[in-house]
Formats: sequence, C-alpha cells, structure tokens
Amino acid sequence: MLDKLTHQPHGVNAKALESKLVRVGVLGFGGLGQAAARVLAPKREMLWVAAADQKGYAYESAGLNPDNCIQTYCSQGSLGHLEPGGTLSNHSIQDLIETASVDGYFLALPNLPNTFMASVARQFIQAGWQGVLVDALKRTSALQELLTLKDELQEAGITYMNGCGATPGLLTAAAALAAQSYAEIHSVNITFGVGIANWEAYRATIREDIAHLPGYDVERAKEMSDAQIEALLDQTNGILKLENMEHADDVMLELAGICSRDRVTVGGVVDTRNSKKPLSTNVQVTGRTFEGKISTHTFTLGDETSMAANVCGPAFGYLKAGISLHQRGIYGLFTAAEIMPQFVH
Amino acid sequence: MLDKLTHQPHGVNAKALESKLVRVGVLGFGGLGQAAARVLAPKREMLWVAAADQKGYAYESAGLNPDNCIQTYCSQGSLGHLEPGGTLSNHSIQDLIETASVDGYFLALPNLPNTFMASVARQFIQAGWQGVLVDALKRTSALQELLTLKDELQEAGITYMNGCGATPGLLTAAAALAAQSYAEIHSVNITFGVGIANWEAYRATIREDIAHLPGYDVERAKEMSDAQIEALLDQTNGILKLENMEHADDVMLELAGICSRDRVTVGGVVDTRNSKKPLSTNVQVTGRTFEGKISTHTFTLGDETSMAANVCGPAFGYLKAGISLHQRGIYGLFTAAEIMPQFVH
Repeated sequence: MLDKLTHQPHGVNAKALESKLVRVGVLGFGGLGQAAARVLAPKREMLWVAAADQKGYAYESAGLNPDNCIQTYCSQGSLGHLEPGGTLSNHSIQDLIETASVDGYFLALPNLPNTFMASVARQFIQAGWQGVLVDALKRTSALQELLTLKDELQEAGITYMNGCGATPGLLTAAAALAAQSYAEIHSVNITFGVGIANWEAYRATIREDIAHLPGYDVERAKEMSDAQIEALLDQTNGILKLENMEHADDVMLELAGICSRDRVTVGGVVDTRNSKKPLSTNVQVTGRTFEGKISTHTFTLGDETSMAANVCGPAFGYLKAGISLHQRGIYGLFTAAEIMPQFVH
Repeated sequence: MLDKLTHQPHGVNAKALESKLVRVGVLGFGGLGQAAARVLAPKREMLWVAAADQKGYAYESAGLNPDNCIQTYCSQGSLGHLEPGGTLSNHSIQDLIETASVDGYFLALPNLPNTFMASVARQFIQAGWQGVLVDALKRTSALQELLTLKDELQEAGITYMNGCGATPGLLTAAAALAAQSYAEIHSVNITFGVGIANWEAYRATIREDIAHLPGYDVERAKEMSDAQIEALLDQTNGILKLENMEHADDVMLELAGICSRDRVTVGGVVDTRNSKKPLSTNVQVTGRTFEGKISTHTFTLGDETSMAANVCGPAFGYLKAGISLHQRGIYGLFTAAEIMPQFVH
C-alpha cells in the first residue's frame, strides 16, 4: 500500500529507526516555519529534528523543542544561538543539508526573489541529498522555475512535492477532485480570506501579498521597510484586496490535465488587523456534465481554521505521501493536484 | 509522472495500440452501466470496447456504440442480441474476460447479494486476467469482502480501485483532503440528495437504497417486486429518507488513517419522482486544528450534477489513476480515499 511507512535510514538515528519515525526538517523560521514546528510537535509519526533560518540552523537527532527554538529565534534572531544544537552560519541551508539526517524537508521559505525556491532545490541536488522536499510556494513563475529542474530532481533521487500549502495546495487538489464530475471544466475560482491579528508575525507572507497589488511587484515589495508597509496598511484600513493573482494553481491544474491555465483565477481578501477572516476561503469548480448540464461544486474551508493550519497540515500530508513515493523509487516533481496527501498522526 | 499513459497491450487492437487509448469494459448495463457508456463515448483517451449484462455480452475492439447498445438492451433485454458483437451467455462476465482485450473494467454492478462484487473480482483472479478494476460499491460489508482478496489481487497483478463512485468515492476523497487542515478529526458527515424522475431506470440502485430503510435488509429489498416498490414509494410520496446508512466511507476513511469508522456517518434523501435534488449533496469534516480551534470544512456538489455524473466521472478518473499505478507494477487494493483520481479527456 502507498500509505505504508517503511523507514529508509539515511543516518544513525536509532530512535527514529526503531519507531519508523519520519525525520523532518523545516527551512525558514518565520511565522510559517514556527507554525510548522508547532504542527509537528504532537505528531507521533514524524519527528522534527532540524531547522534553518538565514543566519544559522539547529539540529537535534532526538528531536527539537518548539518552545525553545521559537524563544531563541525571537530573542536572539537566529536558531544558530540555540543551546545545545544551534550553529551560526552564513550558509545555513547548505550546512544543515550536509550535517543532518533528515527524510524530508518542508521549505517554509518566502519566495522572494522568485527563483529562491528553485535555488534551494539546486542546493539539495548538488549536495547529493536524497529524500522528500515539500514547498508551499505561491507564484506561477516560481513553479515554472522548479519545472526546469524536474529531470535533475528525478536523477538525483529527490521526490519534490510542489505547491502543497493551502492555495496552491489543499484548494488546488480539491479543484482537481471536484473536476471529476464534469466532462469539461469551464472555470476554477479560488477566493481566500485571511485574517491575522498581527501582520508582523508574517512579514514575508504580507510582502508576498503586497507584491500582487496593482503597481507593486516582487522586487518593490521586498524592498519596503516595515514602516512603509504600516503606512500602506493604514491607507487601506489594514485590508489587502487581491484580484487575478499570479498563483501557481493555474499551471498545476493545467499540468494535471484539468483545464487550461487561463480558466483558473485566484483572488482574496487579507485583513492584517483582525484574526477573523473577512470571507470564507473557497474554491468553485464550474463545468459541463456529460448530459450537458452546467453546475458548480464548492469546497469551503471552516472560518476557524488559520492560514497556518491550512498550509502546514497539507504540507506534512504531502510530505508523508512523498515519503511513500520515495520509498517506491518514484522521484521527480509532483504537484498537489496529482497526489492524494496522507493524514499524519 | 504518474499521469502518463503508456499503453500496455494485452491484445491486438491496432487502433488502441497506436493511439494509446485505454480500452474500457463496463460490467452491468442497468442505469449506471448505460450512463457509463454515455460518459465514455466522447472521451479521447478511453475507448469503450466491452460490456456485459446478466444474459450476454458485447465486444468490439474498434469501440461499441452507446445508442445501439442501449437500444438493443432496452428492446431485447440483453447486449447479447447486439448485431454485430453480441453474444448470449449464462456466464457472460467470465466469457467476456476470456474473450476481450480490455485494460480496465468499471464494475457497474448492483451489490446484491453483498458478496457479489468480491465474487466478480475472484472471477478475474481465476481467469489470470491482469489490469485495473474499479467499483462504485456502497456497503461497508461489500468492501470488507473485497479486503479479504487484497493479497490475492496483488499476486494476480490486478490493481483494484475500491469505492470510486460519488459516496463512497468523490465525497470520501474530499473528506480525506479536508482532513489535512486538522490535527484530529471529530466527525465526517456525508449527506446526499438524489433526484431521479423515473426510478425504473435505476431499479437496482433503488432496491439498494430501500435495503437501508428501517425494517428492510438486502435480501428483502432484492425480493421485492416492482409493484411492491411502487406501493412503498406511494406511501412516502416517492421520498426515501435514509439515516445512519451502512456505507463503506467509514472503513475507507479508517483505512486511510483519517479517523475511526464510528466518526463517519452517511445519510440522504432520495426523491424518486423528481429529477431536482431534495437537498445539496455535501460532506462536512469537523476537526480540531493544531491551535485547538474546532471548525468544519464543507464540500458541496452542484445541484445540477446527476448521480450518474458524480458516480461515473470519478469512476473513470480512478480508472485512469489505476492504469498509472498498474503500469508502475503497483497492484492490490486501493480505496478512493488513498489515490488522487486523474481527469479523463
């Protein structure tokens, strides 16, 4: 069965070996990376052993403690200061890859610039590392960068799970599933609502959102100071309204054979001053059935679920599915629309 | 990639070989089997070459014509009367297995008695046939019968896709996907609405529904005459209200590791005199996120989509996914909750 987790040791972690735990690393330790650590902590099937930020990394084969890591990062600016287990480094990702025994990494990285995710994937290839990589990227152009690495990933023995957050990710997969009732897909419309009480906990994510606004791009958003972002948010009462966003859901659904990319639209409303969502996140799939009826399936996320839950949950579900593929010798690049994620206990 | 269809020839169908068409057979030719033929007809990736009913079968390696087949079946009572291509037989399934070159069969069979689907699977095993089987069974007990064949199917080189209709099937997979946002699943509630203008086109399905009513069972429903069913429906104004149904979604979600079977409930309302659905078919997945929030994701099917569209579409989507698995040498028994179906053009 695809869901059977037979542990493939890369190192000497006896505890992980005995219990067939999947040893997980998290790259990036902003809001998303920290949430990933909290999601992982209670899991019985996965053990969080490694993490890296821009200035350092932490590795502990017996498992890292999220509270200690978050406290160290927030008070001292890098996981490299963690005692014991931390190492300061200007090549933190590369050093961690070479040091740690990890079965799969979640790339909780901002994608500024757009080529960053692909450059990280290249580091894994060049290091001769084998295992599963999962990202929660957003932009079509970032996905397209990764697509150029497809053959290299396959040859390297890496199973790369692409676009495995909320959108792209959970909602893209729901669209692929919903499409099954139809002979032809007319449109896939993804509309997300995000409410965060304090945008500063998600600086990178908010910059990525701002880059989607008219008159902004990735470079300009990246260069904005926190004060400039505050000023922008003051003008909009904390609301970011995003339309026709460049989101990789379009290419993912095209690659999965669902519909051409121009039939996929993504938009949303982000409230940066209120944890309550301004609208219910949903995907609507409209198509024609074999009898000629036009109809719409809708998948709606519960308002109480946070962005962190809807991104990190699926990401680790896809990591588990990726481990199953990897154990079968199935390498290369897969998107969230092609593979059913597995539930992680 | 898992979605690449490299044709594996079992026979000498030159046209299918050239175009890498998946040659499909349909077992059972009641309402569901006939709808399956209509769903298949416009597909460019699949070719409908074979079908069987209780009294005969039809096989044409260049493709069967749905209109001719349905007309023959309705006017003469069996596909065995089809000219050319039909053969009358009291062992129609077995004869068809031995005669036809088919890559995958959709088992559009009623599951009365509960062991019928498993007995058909056994016929495929005993015939030494290799390929993909897909069912749209409903009952937990029917699934459990099939689970006992898991190892035999794997050894036989058969990839059996289980519970791949609407529910179980599309909605079960949507539940498995929705579960990803949560750390723990509290309940999965599936509620379906079905409207059919003329129940006589779905005699077997309606008997299966009646078997779920209090005071009825599979045997009693099977023995009812059409007149007795008419009388029952007259009493309820054509409405069948079903609660706590024995539906295989429960074991499928347990097998997929989502939650224990007792947290899954299935109910619905069937209007046998009105093609409009009495309520929107949906699945609600309630759980607790890693932050401790309780919330509910909802997947709702468009009212204009028929039972036939929501069963046959997913069934062939899973058949396509099954073909990919089979080509990779992955055999055995898989449920709709474990595998992402592929869109069939």
